Amino acid sequence: MTATLSERGTHRELREHVAALHAELTRYGLVTWTAGNVSGRVPGEELFVIKGSGVSYDELTWEGITVCDLDGNVVDGVKAPSSDTAAHAYVYRNRPDVGGQVHTHSPYAAAWAARGEAIPCVLTAMADEFGGPIPVGPFALIGDDSIGQGVVATLQDSRSPAVLMQNHGVFTIGRDPKAAVKAAVMTEDVARTVHLSRQLGEPIPIAQADIDSLYARYQNVYGQR
Amino acid sequence: MTATLSERGTHRELREHVAALHAELTRYGLVTWTAGNVSGRVPGEELFVIKGSGVSYDELTWEGITVCDLDGNVVDGVKAPSSDTAAHAYVYRNRPDVGGQVHTHSPYAAAWAARGEAIPCVLTAMADEFGGPIPVGPFALIGDDSIGQGVVATLQDSRSPAVLMQNHGVFTIGRDPKAAVKAAVMTEDVARTVHLSRQLGEPIPIAQADIDSLYARYQNVYGQR
Amino acid sequence: MTATLSERGTHRELREHVAALHAELTRYGLVTWTAGNVSGRVPGEELFVIKGSGVSYDELTWEGITVCDLDGNVVDGVKAPSSDTAAHAYVYRNRPDVGGQVHTHSPYAAAWAARGEAIPCVLTAMADEFGGPIPVGPFALIGDDSIGQGVVATLQDSRSPAVLMQNHGVFTIGRDPKAAVKAAVMTEDVARTVHLSRQLGEPIPIAQADIDSLYARYQNVYGQR
Amino acid sequence: MTATLSERGTHRELREHVAALHAELTRYGLVTWTAGNVSGRVPGEELFVIKGSGVSYDELTWEGITVCDLDGNVVDGVKAPSSDTAAHAYVYRNRPDVGGQVHTHSPYAAAWAARGEAIPCVLTAMADEFGGPIPVGPFALIGDDSIGQGVVATLQDSRSPAVLMQNHGVFTIGRDPKAAVKAAVMTEDVARTVHLSRQLGEPIPIAQADIDSLYARYQNVYGQR
Repeated sequence: MTATLSERGTHRELREHVAALHAELTRYGLVTWTAGNVSGRVPGEELFVIKGSGVSYDELTWEGITVCDLDGNVVDGVKAPSSDTAAHAYVYRNRPDVGGQVHTHSPYAAAWAARGEAIPCVLTAMADEFGGPIPVGPFALIGDDSIGQGVVATLQDSRSPAVLMQNHGVFTIGRDPKAAVKAAVMTEDVARTVHLSRQLGEPIPIAQADIDSLYARYQNVYGQR
Repeated sequence: MTATLSERGTHRELREHVAALHAELTRYGLVTWTAGNVSGRVPGEELFVIKGSGVSYDELTWEGITVCDLDGNVVDGVKAPSSDTAAHAYVYRNRPDVGGQVHTHSPYAAAWAARGEAIPCVLTAMADEFGGPIPVGPFALIGDDSIGQGVVATLQDSRSPAVLMQNHGVFTIGRDPKAAVKAAVMTEDVARTVHLSRQLGEPIPIAQADIDSLYARYQNVYGQR
Repeated sequence: MTATLSERGTHRELREHVAALHAELTRYGLVTWTAGNVSGRVPGEELFVIKGSGVSYDELTWEGITVCDLDGNVVDGVKAPSSDTAAHAYVYRNRPDVGGQVHTHSPYAAAWAARGEAIPCVLTAMADEFGGPIPVGPFALIGDDSIGQGVVATLQDSRSPAVLMQNHGVFTIGRDPKAAVKAAVMTEDVARTVHLSRQLGEPIPIAQADIDSLYARYQNVYGQR
Repeated sequence: MTATLSERGTHRELREHVAALHAELTRYGLVTWTAGNVSGRVPGEELFVIKGSGVSYDELTWEGITVCDLDGNVVDGVKAPSSDTAAHAYVYRNRPDVGGQVHTHSPYAAAWAARGEAIPCVLTAMADEFGGPIPVGPFALIGDDSIGQGVVATLQDSRSPAVLMQNHGVFTIGRDPKAAVKAAVMTEDVARTVHLSRQLGEPIPIAQADIDSLYARYQNVYGQR
């Protein structure tokens, strides 16, 4: 899928931004060694930028981010793009509203994914960000559109910006790369708290009307306008 | 509830102090992304200062702290105040002894909160700081006085400076902001240790007379006079 | 127990060494806020040095370390000594071989202590350092010799340099302060690993002869001669 | 086994590289105090380099790395080599394809080792790196070839570059020291995620054909060519 690598240095600002966002993945312990990646759609072009495959987080600058077209072919860059590029490309092709994506194997979320179990919405912070449970997508092998199809199909009936791909890990979407990073960070946060809560009993469910109310408020009122 | 934002730069020393105290929330892993907040009453005035809504911890200076009156209206500042401002305001109105408050979703404490389960007092450090169990407050939606009412009602019959709001997280009070921060830090610490202890059996209760003795000593003898 | 505080600046080298050793407690997450302390016997004098009560780890220099006699009376320093000073003093009086002590509430170890359960020796690293299980001492209130008596009585029949005081935390001893710090660090390390192992089944016991062999070798061969 | 220590400063580049790689062990929390070690074969010579016994990670430079022959005798260096030197030497003698080794007591992996339980392959990341379960080797005492024999025997029928030695910890191999370090990092990562997953139920197995496919792809396609 990847073409010849060569650097023209296009889209440098977005590549710097996406490179810098990876620091949130390491800060919150979502990634180990070189696993995990952030991508971002190039506004107004049929392109996106994504982390190079196996590039170390310590050495990640804009040159470690590769520009691809929406079929996952390399357009600019010196690094072969992430082995998850096909999945990101599929999501960008099929979800024009998505401007950023993140993939991690963050431990608590991957633990739910290994059981193929959705994370129930038992925290107000989870109602805020996810508007309900974090759903599970199918087992899918890397290498073709299977993972991307699973992500898109699972998220289309959900308010959640995150999906737990079975036996695999987390894929998140957002209107831009930072929103997708926030969703990945919050996914691990709630995966951990609900895990801990379940270890000693059953968390109390939150009524659907309250989840709806929290979600509506958070999406519209939180933060600076 | 918030009025027009504009900066006159009043109460700068307290705002710097409250901004700096947030570093303890990140140091101890009590907060994720922009969630969580510290507030402090302005001594001798019907005002308090509180973190701006959605402001990043990396960028938090005194300008990220907003001055509010005790109804939660903005009096000075360029950031819309925390979405938890109404809760803090209610507590300051109804507890004149409270000079500082903290709110977090720290993971072990929130795990107890999601089950609606008080943390039993089975550690001498918990007897020292909390004087008994950490109680659970009601489920309450954000947006009006419900959370503040739940905090005040739950803490009025308790020595504990912390309450676990059901399905939500931790609210702590103190004579000043630093004391409330310490209570938030210690809440997560004991929430974790008691959680771990319970995972493999039942912790041994501490007799009430011993709890009373430890609490009295710690409140009066510990630290520098 | 503490006399008038005033600084003559004696024993500065040992106080700097003991102050610096506290950085290992924060590095390994053994302490929260100002809890925990290291002490060291002054060689050839009836004195020891110990952390000041409630002194912040960020601000801990030699001036935060106070010199006491073996009854716990302050001899030199500007900080009231740790509220655990009586326990340390008792141990120094009754164990002339002890040159350093550490006290923490490190979470996994305190979780075992809250159940009053000794940590079984199921790891070769534990056989190396502790020569068997880490024993549990009695519940004892702070304020007199009770804790010190419990530490000395429990450790006299054990190879372990660490004791879990019931519902409280960890006390460790060593030939010098650094050895006691190492014991405190290793206590939490093995408390955690054995906790994790027990969560999913029963760890395999190590035969006593193998424990003896590992302990003898580690005490005599490990490290630089 | 160790001969007279003296420094000629040979193989300095490899010793610097191996010294630096230990930073990954501390970064990922795989080691406590001075435990754990990395070694690397000297290409084209019957030698390897390994961490000195009990050397602090803070002070680890090339001078803390000792050069040994394949019987574990010191050839160059001022530090007595790791007490695990005999195990490393045995593996280098019997596995000419191995260019680097790592030993840790990383907590989640050691928890599986204490139960003598292999880690099942229920994560795609585990299929990628390990090609199946991480196997358990026998209980073996330090001091002769027992540990090395256990490592070699257990790994010869496995794709896994890691073995959990019963009641002990992790030994990993790689074509070079960095590959062995990566295997040690990933061992703890998957040990933790599978542990967490098992705490709340049973992870879903991955079909052998899918494991084979993932392993083949990762070994051949991932990263930069």
